[in-house]
Amino acid sequence: MAEVLVVYASLFGNTQKLAQSVVEGAASVANTTTTLRTADEATIDEVRRCDALILGSPVHMGMLDWRIKKFIDSSIYQLWLVDELVGKVAGVFATGGGYGNAGSGVELTQIAMLGSLAECGMILVPFPKSAPGSEVTGSRWGPYARSGGSRMEPIGIQEEMLEGGRQYGASVARVAAALAGKDLFTRTNHVPEGENLKVFQSVNG
Amino acid sequence: MAEVLVVYASLFGNTQKLAQSVVEGAASVANTTTTLRTADEATIDEVRRCDALILGSPVHMGMLDWRIKKFIDSSIYQLWLVDELVGKVAGVFATGGGYGNAGSGVELTQIAMLGSLAECGMILVPFPKSAPGSEVTGSRWGPYARSGGSRMEPIGIQEEMLEGGRQYGASVARVAAALAGKDLFTRTNHVPEGENLKVFQSVNG
Amino acid sequence: MAEVLVVYASLFGNTQKLAQSVVEGAASVANTTTTLRTADEATIDEVRRCDALILGSPVHMGMLDWRIKKFIDSSIYQLWLVDELVGKVAGVFATGGGYGNAGSGVELTQIAMLGSLAECGMILVPFPKSAPGSEVTGSRWGPYARSGGSRMEPIGIQEEMLEGGRQYGASVARVAAALAGKDLFTRTNHVPEGENLKVFQSVNG
Amino acid sequence: MAEVLVVYASLFGNTQKLAQSVVEGAASVANTTTTLRTADEATIDEVRRCDALILGSPVHMGMLDWRIKKFIDSSIYQLWLVDELVGKVAGVFATGGGYGNAGSGVELTQIAMLGSLAECGMILVPFPKSAPGSEVTGSRWGPYARSGGSRMEPIGIQEEMLEGGRQYGASVARVAAALAGKDLFTRTNHVPEGENLKVFQSVNG
Repeated sequence: MAEVLVVYASLFGNTQKLAQSVVEGAASVANTTTTLRTADEATIDEVRRCDALILGSPVHMGMLDWRIKKFIDSSIYQLWLVDELVGKVAGVFATGGGYGNAGSGVELTQIAMLGSLAECGMILVPFPKSAPGSEVTGSRWGPYARSGGSRMEPIGIQEEMLEGGRQYGASVARVAAALAGKDLFTRTNHVPEGENLKVFQSVNG
Repeated sequence: MAEVLVVYASLFGNTQKLAQSVVEGAASVANTTTTLRTADEATIDEVRRCDALILGSPVHMGMLDWRIKKFIDSSIYQLWLVDELVGKVAGVFATGGGYGNAGSGVELTQIAMLGSLAECGMILVPFPKSAPGSEVTGSRWGPYARSGGSRMEPIGIQEEMLEGGRQYGASVARVAAALAGKDLFTRTNHVPEGENLKVFQSVNG
Repeated sequence: MAEVLVVYASLFGNTQKLAQSVVEGAASVANTTTTLRTADEATIDEVRRCDALILGSPVHMGMLDWRIKKFIDSSIYQLWLVDELVGKVAGVFATGGGYGNAGSGVELTQIAMLGSLAECGMILVPFPKSAPGSEVTGSRWGPYARSGGSRMEPIGIQEEMLEGGRQYGASVARVAAALAGKDLFTRTNHVPEGENLKVFQSVNG
Repeated sequence: MAEVLVVYASLFGNTQKLAQSVVEGAASVANTTTTLRTADEATIDEVRRCDALILGSPVHMGMLDWRIKKFIDSSIYQLWLVDELVGKVAGVFATGGGYGNAGSGVELTQIAMLGSLAECGMILVPFPKSAPGSEVTGSRWGPYARSGGSRMEPIGIQEEMLEGGRQYGASVARVAAALAGKDLFTRTNHVPEGENLKVFQSVNG
């Protein structure tokens, strides 16, 4: 039994489509409950409750969309402070276009999201070449659906790409189920409180 | 004669202090004019006009602050679309805290900003170990001032760190002066217009 | 019951010390067997057999040591081809010096190793701030022991740093035990054979 | 008048072809001399002498080839120690295959090389979308020629891709000419000597 939360940002619907496929894949695993939210909608309580958190972003200027980062800086940050996400499971996905065949920054985009999730102590699930759908959405860090050709001609999110999202959602759900409720990390007290919290936060920025 | 624009975000004044030192350093180079702006204040026209753009961010959750990314996604994006920053000069700096001595994500933070600037075709200026001040602010991609100790005890931005900012600002200003007005990149027409622009943008996200 | 394999490179013994602490930590978890190898010694069979693979490198020129990359390109590559590491567990650690307090490239070094392991479909274990020892070895991707001060004065690997290594080794071993023998990833046939294998390989390089 | 050195590794000739196009592009700029070397052949003196150094690698396991890293760790390292590359110009390129359309690690590969070059204090030249050839080799950090399709069917290096290499080589040569002989970075004494050098080196690893 695992709860999978998928949080994404989308401007023209491409990332939303891929997000829906990830949720579908997770929901296909027995005893999994799923929640799909935009970065604006998702609440701190939803993040706190989940066993697995999957973030999805369009690639904008070769990096995660600012809406996703705002969600990380405001909501996820609160749970990082108090170590509440340690040992949970995490994943990422992305969509994008851009000239050429190098992914236009998708790798840094996915690593940016994974980095904030690793910061929280979350266990990261990859997307191997053996996954069905990886011929069109293959990226080791999580599925990537290319909504534009190498000359930026629009191709949209194709059905074949959604298979990559489904497979990934299912893998993350299975890992989450295998690890749910287990406490695998020894913890020391690094949680600042009261006046210490204010001082702690003032260091950042 | 070069115009250097420094754009930063700061929550508790640490990044602001380093930003001021970068501007001071740039201003110390003959025939340089400088402008210091927060990510909220900076205008597209200011970015268009500058010969060198330097971005500064606190490290938040191991990645650039969302305010800087919003500035990139809204303002810098407009100039990327029309290739107006190609061949200009760019640089980055950051401040942060965090447990341990690994920089807590400063490297990905600086690369995130550099990546968006490289996307625009800007020439990137590093911060070598030979720079005065690098013993306390050394990071190859641009100066990093650590406002907290490895146990997150606040230490603030020290005078010695500002020297790193000044040296970097001066180096960027000199590179900008050496390259200003030169057109070193051959261009083809990759600027979408009219209906094409709408289609082009719809691919992203 | 899990088998943990730690593979490292070390020139002056610093990374070796941290590697030993990681192995110690893993061995402290019930029913775990451990193997410690340099990148020159480790065999493909040892990698094939393990439940968890942890790679450790000194930071050289801001990136993983070439000996570790040679091991990845020759040994790990063979298992990547045939998808034999999919679903296993992985981790990384590093040591280094360098001017300043930004980690001198440790983040890219750790991500470089994690990237090759994610490419193989391995599940990645982070090093959260809640881990004992993280005040001196904290890095979200895996422990980092700094063997030189910010002015490059040698400080060596301190006992306190070894605690970070032990904690990490134990966490990875526990995650490996929880996932060992489970097949959580659906696979399609992406394994090239015979003449196809030769063609496949010729694409790379 | 600028001297451009291109150093690459290649197993099946793909990266070699792109390397040749980069050299051709550089040579097309008036008053430029060029040298093309494999990572095994290039000497420290050749690196010391050049005004611009361009590194090229196949993407192997989502990261730079170990031969390139060995060249960095042995030859470039010697010049990093004594700050001899500060203020010179640098660039990168890569080739690769891999399932999917995310570039299969080309971004981290290019950043790995750029990181070592930034460590040396070299000024980095990007590859903007406005460059002729970027529709097939576009990657902000430097040209990327994809020698395999998204299903790993071999396509080889096409003539159209070589245009991207040529344009990039020419841009780097022009930036090198504009900056050659100028000393734009203030230096402090961070060069270890004699006994200090031994201690300094022992910190790494």
